[in-house]
Amino acid sequence: MKRQNFKHLECSLARTLDVVGEWWTLLIIRDLFYGIDTFDKLCWDLGVARNILADRLNKLKEQRVIEKRVQLDWRGRKRYGLTPKGEDLFQIIMTLVAWGDRWEAPKGPPVVLWHGKNRHRGRPIVICAECGETMTPRNVKPLRGPGAKRPKALPLPLRPTKV
Amino acid sequence: MKRQNFKHLECSLARTLDVVGEWWTLLIIRDLFYGIDTFDKLCWDLGVARNILADRLNKLKEQRVIEKRVQLDWRGRKRYGLTPKGEDLFQIIMTLVAWGDRWEAPKGPPVVLWHGKNRHRGRPIVICAECGETMTPRNVKPLRGPGAKRPKALPLPLRPTKV
Repeated sequence: MKRQNFKHLECSLARTLDVVGEWWTLLIIRDLFYGIDTFDKLCWDLGVARNILADRLNKLKEQRVIEKRVQLDWRGRKRYGLTPKGEDLFQIIMTLVAWGDRWEAPKGPPVVLWHGKNRHRGRPIVICAECGETMTPRNVKPLRGPGAKRPKALPLPLRPTKV
Repeated sequence: MKRQNFKHLECSLARTLDVVGEWWTLLIIRDLFYGIDTFDKLCWDLGVARNILADRLNKLKEQRVIEKRVQLDWRGRKRYGLTPKGEDLFQIIMTLVAWGDRWEAPKGPPVVLWHGKNRHRGRPIVICAECGETMTPRNVKPLRGPGAKRPKALPLPLRPTKV
């Protein structure tokens, strides 16, 4: 199957998926956050084929989401690290984990996110940094922005969201 | 290419990607939030092949993320709607869009998310609902939770995150 890309779609969601939407990519990022950061450790933890892992890591390097660190581990292997662009994916990972915890974890969350100095159970939610209110389908209205190009691609809003 | 799944990975992120991680799926969900909700409109807006769209919609129905609405549009076509499980994906979409706006939109965001009654530009961030603080790689520590099964799958934390 040919790799698809969503460049033709005028939307930051499509652009984000172009960078991190491939199978394995977000799991690799998650592992890097967890400190699983050499090729062999990633391969072992994810159970992913070496050629696929190499491909994903290369693409992430090209996109400047990760970088090879000069610092070597105790066996002399190079480690991968997240760039600021990669670190910024943390919030996406938090919301993905939170949704899975709510809807796909009947036996409770496999991983608990302990948060803050006093180590309480973190419960990620999305708010608007401007006003502090939560963002829901009912109070967000998406409209064409300055980066929009073609009128065709954005027939918004067909059915305006109530605000 | 055979569809992969991440069921063997003990993690809510992997489980979420099993539901919404396939190409097109999150873009379909986004369109449903925007009110693009019939088969033909989705097909036209995304430029996706009809068989792929049908496959993704079927899977989303099986997963109870979307449902076919009895209500017909003016041309008598059935509409798709998000279930509560599907509506809950909104926060994920917000963080994906926000990241794309920050890192992949040199000419400005193609879509602006107007928020709240006074219509300011929404700026989605992830905070912890328990304490109100932001969640960052530096103040979150992932550890095995009640839903974890096999010790192998969760060698956390190899390099503990500083809290």
